[in-house]
Amino acid sequence: MIFLQKEDNFNDWYIEIVEKANLSDKRYPVKGMNVWTPYGWKIMRGIDTYIRQELDATGHDEVCFPLLIPETEFKKEKDHIKGFDSEVYWVTHAGLNELDVRLVIRPTSETAMYPMFSLWIRSHQDLPLKVYQIVNTFRYETKQTRAFIRVREIHFFESHTCHATVEDAQCQIDEDVEILAKIAKRLCLPYSLLVRTEWDKFPGAYYTVGIDTVMPNGKTLQIGSIHHYRTNFSEPYNITFEDDDGEHKFVHQTTYGMSERLLGAVIGVHSDDAGLIMPPDIAPFQVVIIPILSKTNSDLVMEASNMLFKTLTDAGLRVKLDDRDARPGSKYYDWEIKGVPLRLELGGRDIENGVVTFARRDNSEKGTIDITTVSDGVRLLLDVISQSMYDKAKQIQQSHIQEIDSLNNIPEDKVLKFGWCGCEECGHKFEDNYDMKILGTPYISENYKGKCIICGKSTDKPVYAAHTM
Amino acid sequence: MIFLQKEDNFNDWYIEIVEKANLSDKRYPVKGMNVWTPYGWKIMRGIDTYIRQELDATGHDEVCFPLLIPETEFKKEKDHIKGFDSEVYWVTHAGLNELDVRLVIRPTSETAMYPMFSLWIRSHQDLPLKVYQIVNTFRYETKQTRAFIRVREIHFFESHTCHATVEDAQCQIDEDVEILAKIAKRLCLPYSLLVRTEWDKFPGAYYTVGIDTVMPNGKTLQIGSIHHYRTNFSEPYNITFEDDDGEHKFVHQTTYGMSERLLGAVIGVHSDDAGLIMPPDIAPFQVVIIPILSKTNSDLVMEASNMLFKTLTDAGLRVKLDDRDARPGSKYYDWEIKGVPLRLELGGRDIENGVVTFARRDNSEKGTIDITTVSDGVRLLLDVISQSMYDKAKQIQQSHIQEIDSLNNIPEDKVLKFGWCGCEECGHKFEDNYDMKILGTPYISENYKGKCIICGKSTDKPVYAAHTM
Repeated sequence: MIFLQKEDNFNDWYIEIVEKANLSDKRYPVKGMNVWTPYGWKIMRGIDTYIRQELDATGHDEVCFPLLIPETEFKKEKDHIKGFDSEVYWVTHAGLNELDVRLVIRPTSETAMYPMFSLWIRSHQDLPLKVYQIVNTFRYETKQTRAFIRVREIHFFESHTCHATVEDAQCQIDEDVEILAKIAKRLCLPYSLLVRTEWDKFPGAYYTVGIDTVMPNGKTLQIGSIHHYRTNFSEPYNITFEDDDGEHKFVHQTTYGMSERLLGAVIGVHSDDAGLIMPPDIAPFQVVIIPILSKTNSDLVMEASNMLFKTLTDAGLRVKLDDRDARPGSKYYDWEIKGVPLRLELGGRDIENGVVTFARRDNSEKGTIDITTVSDGVRLLLDVISQSMYDKAKQIQQSHIQEIDSLNNIPEDKVLKFGWCGCEECGHKFEDNYDMKILGTPYISENYKGKCIICGKSTDKPVYAAHTM
Repeated sequence: MIFLQKEDNFNDWYIEIVEKANLSDKRYPVKGMNVWTPYGWKIMRGIDTYIRQELDATGHDEVCFPLLIPETEFKKEKDHIKGFDSEVYWVTHAGLNELDVRLVIRPTSETAMYPMFSLWIRSHQDLPLKVYQIVNTFRYETKQTRAFIRVREIHFFESHTCHATVEDAQCQIDEDVEILAKIAKRLCLPYSLLVRTEWDKFPGAYYTVGIDTVMPNGKTLQIGSIHHYRTNFSEPYNITFEDDDGEHKFVHQTTYGMSERLLGAVIGVHSDDAGLIMPPDIAPFQVVIIPILSKTNSDLVMEASNMLFKTLTDAGLRVKLDDRDARPGSKYYDWEIKGVPLRLELGGRDIENGVVTFARRDNSEKGTIDITTVSDGVRLLLDVISQSMYDKAKQIQQSHIQEIDSLNNIPEDKVLKFGWCGCEECGHKFEDNYDMKILGTPYISENYKGKCIICGKSTDKPVYAAHTM
């Protein structure tokens, strides 16, 4: 075993697995800006495909807005600029000239899109406006960087919507939650939806729902967020519509975004000490075929392997036939690192018996599939693998959540659930004393009765707190 | 007719058609950085799909390199920086800090990729290295901007390859030429391949092949280029491999790129005074179905229209059923502007006769298709439309090329073909006196015997010259 142990040293294990599976190259000469190498980019593009599918299916239009935002537009919403001014990149010169108006490289696109929305929207017939883009965004991270999890050039999607009423905007957020469920299922990722505290919400938002997943080291990773803006942006950007009654009103807005952290979560949650374990839906190769050749049967086995490859490919599966001149064991090793969910071995005896031997990447289980119904058999196994990956992840995550009712003996490496009265003073007191972050209260309400863990006041809302990645 | 006339005023017609078809919005508050609106972006993404398909099929791996390039890396190749230093954007500040090393926003990615290539390539087994990316790139244009044709944020693909020998690199260029043929066929675009003059080649290249198309106003538009670098970049970036014999050698490199100008060319070459005409392969909708309802048969016609929509969609065609409550004529008008290649009208009489009525967007031809074989019928018509769009474009372009053997009475609005001895002095003399650009000599040699139009020396190579967009 050349790998570090996930359980002993999650952080170094993570770095090593990204490198060994060749998902990204961090040697690029700007810190925190990594190169997407072919295998990592293929996985990310696979995730993007599902994002597009779900957003298109719910009536969002894909657009592409410019990368650069004039400082004058960027500064229109007061909280927003305050939240971002320490972490944006500034373009000050073009060619040999100094620019009259400095340009910000987008850290997110509200301030690029909203001046245009104010031109696009005239009447209630233009609503709802629902657009999204899949682009890279830029934040000048000062904390330690880590592939996919904390980088300075971030691949993400952002959807932006405008509505006639606050209720319509709220419905959009519920739609976003459904979209999230579908995407997360593809990644076999459990998650929680927590309404962030007032002091932790997105700069300019009315409220923010954080999407968190728990990593195996007990820290949480925020993989995305959904925001209700009400009219906080439409007022400074003057995005209005003429209502049925001829009155001009500000639109209500929402946004929703998730980043390459989705990939970071997939790596951290699912993989093991032998390498990646890819969820079948996003695996660049779902199946790898390894011919087991002997001196006497190599033609026969290669022919059968080629036929198997064709059968599975024709059935719409993503298949690799590894016909390199190398020992099967070394091929197993390579594809385990890459996380291919299902390995099929085909040798003389398999052919005689009319079967193909399989090995699951997620739990090492082996068995055979009848060759006459091999496509259905493989598809079924991939579904079983997906479900089992999700269940295992869910169970590990649950085991990291602990309910407490006193501040004595706070457990290490756990996500805590406890009562909070909701006041800022108690919240800050907890965060400062225990160096943990309050993630927020459940977006989908939980039945709860308890006391604020700080002041002892009765409360019917639990709060979650954790160390974050 | 609300449109300007293409023949009378190509430039204004072009601007108007981009706006009316809603392909991009130029009102974004940074000049030359336009917003890709949904319809335009859908078409561009359709073009990207074919680019990916062809590059993947020829063994190129898709990657994504960082946007920002440290000044130190950017300056390593002397000609390259000289060619670009007046047209790049500079990032000088991040957050509240001034950066130690300024960052360039990529104008092209040689200087981002090649430091990494020098880490990736060790032995001849790592060759050829063939990668590409589809990203946006940035040039500080000082000339007048124009949607898709001259912008400051440019959507493009760039492929970069490394080879063991100069001959292998040359074979790559021939492969690029084949890839181009396949992509251009999808766009119904004729083009020429001309080896640029020494003073017009890409900064740092050994030679450059320009890919030009002729616009209906007789000016040429460069839609892409292919470069042979030899070892011009591998030397300063130290990209070497260990050969079979243990010797360390510099790799030979090529690049190939085409931009959103492909879309500009499609608009300019194919469209007419009623709107866009989309080549069927890249049309977001290949077919629009317009139900022709009367008071008595609307249920029947809507049912038949829905069935027709399902039949064509199931057959893999991209179809829009326009069931808006509006007059057919106003629907025709809308979809003509959007350039949908084939309109299908379905009314009571069509249903009685077991047919559907079609109207071609490219030449207004009308007819009927048998409903029982409607998918095949539509597919055949789309093929005919593609071929006919290509033929028409080819004929118009040919009509703009004129061979001349004297400098008296140089025709206006033509691409000129004439003899040139190849010396810089004669070349510059021509360009300066006639305010035209020498595009270069044919990459695929033509049988030619003539005299240099400036000095009269005999030559066996023709040269092409034009006014450029």
